[in-house]
Amino acid sequence: MMGHPDTFFDALEIRDPAARSADHIRRVKATITAALALPAWRAHLGPVNPAEIDSPAALAQLPVLRKSALPALQKAMRPFGGLMPGQPGHWKRLMMSPGPIFEPEANEIDPWHVARAMYAAGIRAGDIIQNTFSYHLTPGAWCFDGGARQIGCAVIPAGPGNTDAQLDLIEAYQPSVYTGTPDYLKIILEAADDKGRDVSSLRRALVSGAAFPPSLQAWIAARGIDAYQCYATAECGVIAYETSAREGLVLDEDLLVEIVRPGTGIPVEPGEVGEIVVTVLDPAKPLVRLAVGDLSAFLPGPSPCGRTNGRIKGWMGRADQTAKVKGMFVRPEQVATLLASLPQASRARLVITRANEQDQLLLRLESGSGGHTLVEPARSTARSILKLDTAIEIVEPGHLPRDGIVIEDRRGAV
Amino acid sequence: MMGHPDTFFDALEIRDPAARSADHIRRVKATITAALALPAWRAHLGPVNPAEIDSPAALAQLPVLRKSALPALQKAMRPFGGLMPGQPGHWKRLMMSPGPIFEPEANEIDPWHVARAMYAAGIRAGDIIQNTFSYHLTPGAWCFDGGARQIGCAVIPAGPGNTDAQLDLIEAYQPSVYTGTPDYLKIILEAADDKGRDVSSLRRALVSGAAFPPSLQAWIAARGIDAYQCYATAECGVIAYETSAREGLVLDEDLLVEIVRPGTGIPVEPGEVGEIVVTVLDPAKPLVRLAVGDLSAFLPGPSPCGRTNGRIKGWMGRADQTAKVKGMFVRPEQVATLLASLPQASRARLVITRANEQDQLLLRLESGSGGHTLVEPARSTARSILKLDTAIEIVEPGHLPRDGIVIEDRRGAV
Repeated sequence: MMGHPDTFFDALEIRDPAARSADHIRRVKATITAALALPAWRAHLGPVNPAEIDSPAALAQLPVLRKSALPALQKAMRPFGGLMPGQPGHWKRLMMSPGPIFEPEANEIDPWHVARAMYAAGIRAGDIIQNTFSYHLTPGAWCFDGGARQIGCAVIPAGPGNTDAQLDLIEAYQPSVYTGTPDYLKIILEAADDKGRDVSSLRRALVSGAAFPPSLQAWIAARGIDAYQCYATAECGVIAYETSAREGLVLDEDLLVEIVRPGTGIPVEPGEVGEIVVTVLDPAKPLVRLAVGDLSAFLPGPSPCGRTNGRIKGWMGRADQTAKVKGMFVRPEQVATLLASLPQASRARLVITRANEQDQLLLRLESGSGGHTLVEPARSTARSILKLDTAIEIVEPGHLPRDGIVIEDRRGAV
Repeated sequence: MMGHPDTFFDALEIRDPAARSADHIRRVKATITAALALPAWRAHLGPVNPAEIDSPAALAQLPVLRKSALPALQKAMRPFGGLMPGQPGHWKRLMMSPGPIFEPEANEIDPWHVARAMYAAGIRAGDIIQNTFSYHLTPGAWCFDGGARQIGCAVIPAGPGNTDAQLDLIEAYQPSVYTGTPDYLKIILEAADDKGRDVSSLRRALVSGAAFPPSLQAWIAARGIDAYQCYATAECGVIAYETSAREGLVLDEDLLVEIVRPGTGIPVEPGEVGEIVVTVLDPAKPLVRLAVGDLSAFLPGPSPCGRTNGRIKGWMGRADQTAKVKGMFVRPEQVATLLASLPQASRARLVITRANEQDQLLLRLESGSGGHTLVEPARSTARSILKLDTAIEIVEPGHLPRDGIVIEDRRGAV
């Protein structure tokens, strides 16, 4: 289904996947070349020849940069840990996200490439957008403001909170579009009901920044508002966006997305849940294999909307599974190291339970042959790496769930 | 003193005053022509031929539009009372100020022409600006953000409040410039002292939005921060700005400023305090003789900084002197009507006092001749217009203060 001529933001969305791959590889090389001009990226990436990064498999050999590592890197070298080119004063705006993580806004109209997601949500030039993300400190509202500038919409910079003022603005300006979290849209609509205010101009929404469960989707749809979600982070901008197909989120054209086993840089098998890793294809703001800390999975096949890029299932939770066990931190990276030390095992999952007022560990390993010979080496390797005692269970290959979990904490809420 | 080549934002600031006047008259005609294309402006201005508005005296014949009238005008015709051309969706952003007054942001880099004021304050390309005005709802922060874009500065969109985050941002990004209210700059500097934080990167400030008394100027200067003030409103943008001369505020090049007797559209005598009336010289966003509700006075002679435009003393208080007397509103417009009904009187001042638990009125009138014959007509005219009894005092011409006050409320704080 190709739809009307104005269905797509541009022809990039429906290009031949081979053409996209070739374009992306070219841009990956340019991005890595730009990154290597900076000592901090050179130190992180190690010896690498950009010309040799000519496939997803080659890219997957490079180290990931964990978002959780950014605060310390930046603290050691203000403001950007040496990972951004140029002087701070030459960027457009300078942001701060929780962490703290410091992020620059590039000197472009739509630096976080949000226009494409807005277009897929049906937003067009001349629309009025009530933007309820915050413009203060973090990039949130600026991402959507830039997308609106690119498309040619008028923005009401409402910010979050002050629901009475939101209602005043809606009645006065009759915006057709809401941008913000899905939860805050519900709050505004309920407040309008309570106070007898007219918010019927709102017909469309692009939501982000929080989970958008099916129950809330249905509630908002029943109000006559066509709401689409997009997945974005402060560092990468829009990573994937919903389309009229309503089947997962289509990947943006300006970045490369991998899904890896948490704690590693190793791509998961097709369809398996893992951590999202993003390479932003922009030499002016190079980001190579940033592990953003969220879980998702690829969807197979093309989107029925006609866009030819890959798809993910959307946000499936936080990837960081670090847990405290008997006072010690246990990290996904340790489980990855453990697994790498046990060649007979193909997959590992550490389960934390509580019994007799004590934390208990169980290391579950998939192994195809000679599983029983694995138990003792696994026990001693785990003790060496985790500094904790753990029980060992060997299971058949394919037996552990493909849900992106490597540390499963069954102790319940603490 | 002409200063260095980079002293001035552009050559407009030092042009021959006659050339400026000719340019302004041309632009006034274009602005009035654009206004008359809109029914709401036609209804307000009445029959007027733009070609005949060829002098300040001719402009002064047109009716003023009081800012205090905007909420009712806009309520009758959402969102802009019919006073702005085009559809709301074709503006850049859509704002709401207290009143409420709804205001559009024009599709320009620096729609509120703040760059000129920033330049006079010593702000240059590549500077990092901590912008502590709010980006939400009102134009405040957007004015300064636009000026920064025009000059080529990086902006930290800090917003107001969250002083700890402000300190984090200053330490991480080392901004050289603060924009915001003068009071909040003091709060940030004191918080830095209390918490032992380093804010020594701040060397310069452009403040607005509140009074900046000499005591606070001295306190901030003693901290090594070169702070300049500018006077701006949400409708007009920057009206006047401080320069290195530190003698009043120089008028902006993109608007015409008059100072009128409060309650009227009649220009005051040179140097006398009155209400600021602004005509914004922009046919795309016509504003003709907007009485902004603030008091100021013109300063005589040219600025020692070399700029050739007129100067005002800065903000000298609120112009709206409406008072409630014995349960009735008394407005400056009524005093103006009263004075116009008494040809023998040249100036009027209504004084409100309280005695014996009663409000008391005294109408003071300047009259050159036959003052005693004025008392009875004045008393009866006042009763007819104010619906209140008032005592009458006749004084010699020049006896009443030239302080912009037509209703002097001596009852003290209620």
